[in-house]
Amino acid sequence: MSSFEALAGDLRAALGESDLVTEPEELAYYGQDRCRGGWPVAPSAIAFPRDIGQVQALVRACAHHGVAIVPSGGRTGLAGAATATRGELVVSFDRFNRRCEVEAPAKLVHCDPGVTIARVHEAAAACGLRYPVDWAASGTAQVGGSIATNAGGIRVLRYGSTRAWVRDLELVLADGRHLRLAGNVLKDNTGYDLRQLFIASEGTLGLIVGASLGLVSPPADRLVVAGGVGGMPQMLALFERLRAGLSTLSAFECFDGGCVEHVVAHRGQGAQRPMAEDHAQYVVLEVEIERAGEGAKEAMTDQLMELLADAQEAGELDDAVLAASDQQARALWAWREDISESLHPHTPHKADVCVPVHRIAVFEAAWRDALASQLEGIEARCFGHVGDGNLHLNLLRPAAMSLEDFLARCHAFDDTLYRLVCAHEGSVSAEHGVGLLKRRALEIQREGGQLDAMRAIKAALDPGGLFNPGKIFT
Amino acid sequence: MSSFEALAGDLRAALGESDLVTEPEELAYYGQDRCRGGWPVAPSAIAFPRDIGQVQALVRACAHHGVAIVPSGGRTGLAGAATATRGELVVSFDRFNRRCEVEAPAKLVHCDPGVTIARVHEAAAACGLRYPVDWAASGTAQVGGSIATNAGGIRVLRYGSTRAWVRDLELVLADGRHLRLAGNVLKDNTGYDLRQLFIASEGTLGLIVGASLGLVSPPADRLVVAGGVGGMPQMLALFERLRAGLSTLSAFECFDGGCVEHVVAHRGQGAQRPMAEDHAQYVVLEVEIERAGEGAKEAMTDQLMELLADAQEAGELDDAVLAASDQQARALWAWREDISESLHPHTPHKADVCVPVHRIAVFEAAWRDALASQLEGIEARCFGHVGDGNLHLNLLRPAAMSLEDFLARCHAFDDTLYRLVCAHEGSVSAEHGVGLLKRRALEIQREGGQLDAMRAIKAALDPGGLFNPGKIFT
Repeated sequence: MSSFEALAGDLRAALGESDLVTEPEELAYYGQDRCRGGWPVAPSAIAFPRDIGQVQALVRACAHHGVAIVPSGGRTGLAGAATATRGELVVSFDRFNRRCEVEAPAKLVHCDPGVTIARVHEAAAACGLRYPVDWAASGTAQVGGSIATNAGGIRVLRYGSTRAWVRDLELVLADGRHLRLAGNVLKDNTGYDLRQLFIASEGTLGLIVGASLGLVSPPADRLVVAGGVGGMPQMLALFERLRAGLSTLSAFECFDGGCVEHVVAHRGQGAQRPMAEDHAQYVVLEVEIERAGEGAKEAMTDQLMELLADAQEAGELDDAVLAASDQQARALWAWREDISESLHPHTPHKADVCVPVHRIAVFEAAWRDALASQLEGIEARCFGHVGDGNLHLNLLRPAAMSLEDFLARCHAFDDTLYRLVCAHEGSVSAEHGVGLLKRRALEIQREGGQLDAMRAIKAALDPGGLFNPGKIFT
Repeated sequence: MSSFEALAGDLRAALGESDLVTEPEELAYYGQDRCRGGWPVAPSAIAFPRDIGQVQALVRACAHHGVAIVPSGGRTGLAGAATATRGELVVSFDRFNRRCEVEAPAKLVHCDPGVTIARVHEAAAACGLRYPVDWAASGTAQVGGSIATNAGGIRVLRYGSTRAWVRDLELVLADGRHLRLAGNVLKDNTGYDLRQLFIASEGTLGLIVGASLGLVSPPADRLVVAGGVGGMPQMLALFERLRAGLSTLSAFECFDGGCVEHVVAHRGQGAQRPMAEDHAQYVVLEVEIERAGEGAKEAMTDQLMELLADAQEAGELDDAVLAASDQQARALWAWREDISESLHPHTPHKADVCVPVHRIAVFEAAWRDALASQLEGIEARCFGHVGDGNLHLNLLRPAAMSLEDFLARCHAFDDTLYRLVCAHEGSVSAEHGVGLLKRRALEIQREGGQLDAMRAIKAALDPGGLFNPGKIFT
C-alpha cells in the first residue's frame, strides 16, 4: 500500500464522505492557481475540511504518512503558491466557510478561512461598516489566502495591505496544534508577534483556520478625478502635492497613454476617449469625504479643485475631469480597471514591482531605457499604484513573434529588471508574492543571510517540511 | 583563566581601549533599566561598540567563550529587559550614535542604534519633517531600544507604535552575521517579513545595529481641548463621536479626578485646578490641522466645537476648555503629563494594560469592583490612552502600610487583574514589554502553544541562547 493510499483511508475517516476527491478533472482544477508557469499539476487528492478539528486531523494524518500539503484558497494567486507539483494533498478551504460574523461595536468581522473577500465586504456593508482592503480578484479570493499572501490592491495608499487589518489569527501548526493568536488590541507588547510571521508566508509555516479582520466606518462620499499628465516626473509631483494636502486621498493610480489605446480598442467601435486630447500619462485618483452633508462635500471639492489648479499652474497636470455622479466616477475608474483585460489578447508577460515612491519616475525612465536597448520591437505598458510605488509592467507579444521566442526574450529581460528594481531599493514582488514563479527573483533581492534566516524559521515551525514545500525558497 | 577573562582579552582587541569597562559603579549603572524588581544586578562588564564591525566581533567572541549578552539602549524600560542578572556582558549602544541623517525626499531618517529619539525628533524638525512616535522617555530612549521594545506613547491613536515606522532594519545575529532587512517600500511580498520578528523581541533574537525610520510632514497646527466627563462610559461615547468625525484626532487621553488631586498637591500652594468644577473623569485631546492658514484652522475649530456641543447635549461631556494659545495647550497637556511624577511619592505599583477600545468602560468598572473587594483601603488611580484602549493602573501605598505588606497585597492582586484583562481579550503589557517583570503575566495571557512557538523561533535564530537569556520566557 503506497503512502497515499494509507493516508486516504485516514482522511476518509476524518472528513465527510464527499470531502476527499481524486477525479482527474478535480485534481487539474484544484491543483493550481492562476499562474501558468509550466510546472506539472500533480496533486494526489483534494481535501475539503469544514472545521478546525478536521484540519487538525488531516495535518496529523499527512505528517504521519509523509505526504505534504498545499493549502488552497480562491486560487487567484499569480505566483504559483497554490500549485501542487509532486503528489501533495491539496487542502481546499472552499467548504470551511460558515462563519462571517460582524461584531459591530468592536469593528471586527470574524471569519472562517474559506469566506470570500466579497462576502466580507457585503457583511461589513450590511452593518454600516467597511473592510478597506479591495482588489480585482476579491470576488473569488478567500480570507485565509488573502492573509497568507498579504493581499494589497487599490486603497493601500490610505489603508495599507491585508497585514494592517488582521486582528485575531487562528492557525493549525505542523504538529496538529491549534493556536489562537489574539490581536484585537492596539497595543500588545507580549513577546514575538507571531501573526506577522504567518502573514505573507504563502502557506509554508501553518494553515490559517480563522481570522478576525478590522473594519472601518465607510466614508460618507468620494470625489473621483481623472487627469492627463505630461510624464512620470509630473505625475510624482502631482501625487506629492495632493498627498500633502489631502489626508483622505485613498487612491492615486496611473496608466500610460498606450494603455488607453488598448482599452479603446478592446471596447470596440464607438468607444469614447477619456479626455478631449491625448496625454502621455493618465491618473485616476479618489478622495474620501468622511462627514456626511453637502457642506463637507463642497469644502472637500473646493480644496481639491484648488490643489488641482495649483498643480495645473505648476505644469504637473494638463487636464482634469471631476466625476459629477457615481456613474461618472465608475466610468473614470473603468479606464484603470479595464487595462488588464484589454492587454490579455497580447499574452502579456507581467512584472509586479515596487520602488520607494519618490523614485518612481526615475525608475520608470530607467526601465524604458533598458527596454529600448534590450527589447526593441516589444511593446511595453506600465500602469499601477503611484501612491504605493507599485508598478505593473507588461510586455506584449508582437503578433508575428512565437510565444516561445517572446517568453525567452522576456525571461532574459527579467534579470535586468529585477537588478534594476534592487538598485532602486525596491521589491521584485510587491503584491503577488514569490510562490514558485519568483524564487529566482527572490535570490536577486534578498541576500543569503536573509534566506538562511527564513529557512531556519521554516525548519523550526515545520521541521518535516509538511507545508507547501518548494514555495518561496528551494 | 575564567571564560570571562579570556573573553575580555578578545573584547579589548576588538574595541577601543576605553570601550570595555568593569568598574563596580559602571556595572551597577549600566547593568539595569528603570525597573526595580529585586533581581541581582550583576553584569561582568560593559562593552561600548561604535560600529557594526565591533558588534560583530564582540558577538563572535561572546559566542566563542559562552558568555551571554544583554543589549542596552537608553535603559528607560520598565520591565527589566535590559537588566543583567548573571554575569552577562552588557552591550551598550551609547557610543554607537554617529549617524542620524534625514533623507528628506524619501521621508526617512537613517540612524545608528544609539541615537536618542529626541535627536531623531530634532533632525526631522530641522528638515521640516516629523517622527510621529513620542513618549515621556524619548529624551533618553534610543532608536535600537525603541524598536526592540516597540515603543508606543501618546500619538499611537493616529500614527501607531514604533512598529509602524521601522523601514530598513539592520541586525547582527548570533553567528555574527550582519543582515540588512530592507523595508523602504510600501508593498513587498518577498518571503517572511523578518523585521516584524525582531521588533518587540526585547533583544532576545539579535542586536539592532541600524534602522531607517519613516517620517511625516508635520501638521500646520493643532487644537488642544481639556474636558470634564461624568464617567468612563461617557468618555468612551465622546471618543467614538470624535473619532468618527475627525480623521486627524491624534490624542485622546483620560485621567480620573483623583489624578488631578495628586497633580494639584504635587504642584503645591496656589496651584490652579483644570476647570471651574470638579469631574469624575478628565480628558485631554488633540486634533491636528494639516493645512496651513487661518481658513483651515477656523474650519477645524468650527467642526470640533460642533462635535463637542453635540457631545454636551448627549451628556457625554460636562465642560470643556479649548486652548487659545500654544502656551495654554501645553498647560492643558501638563495635567496629563504630570500625573506619573505626582504619584511617585506614593511608591505606586503599576500595571500597563490594554483592552479593545469599545470595552474600556466595562473593563474599568470591573477593575474598580475587583479593587473594592480585594484591596480595600488602597487608593487606585487610572489614567491612559483611551483611543488605544491602553490604561495605566496605579495602586498607591497608604502612608501607614509597610512597603513589604503593600507589595504582597499588590502582587496578589496582579493575578486577578491579569485574568480580568484576558477575560476582556486584552494585553497584560500594552507598551512596556515582558522583560523579567511580566513573565508570569505572559503565561496567563499566552497559551502554551504560543510560548512553544516563540521558544522554537528563539532556538532557531539563537541556538546557543546568547542574547538576553531569561527575558520574555524562562
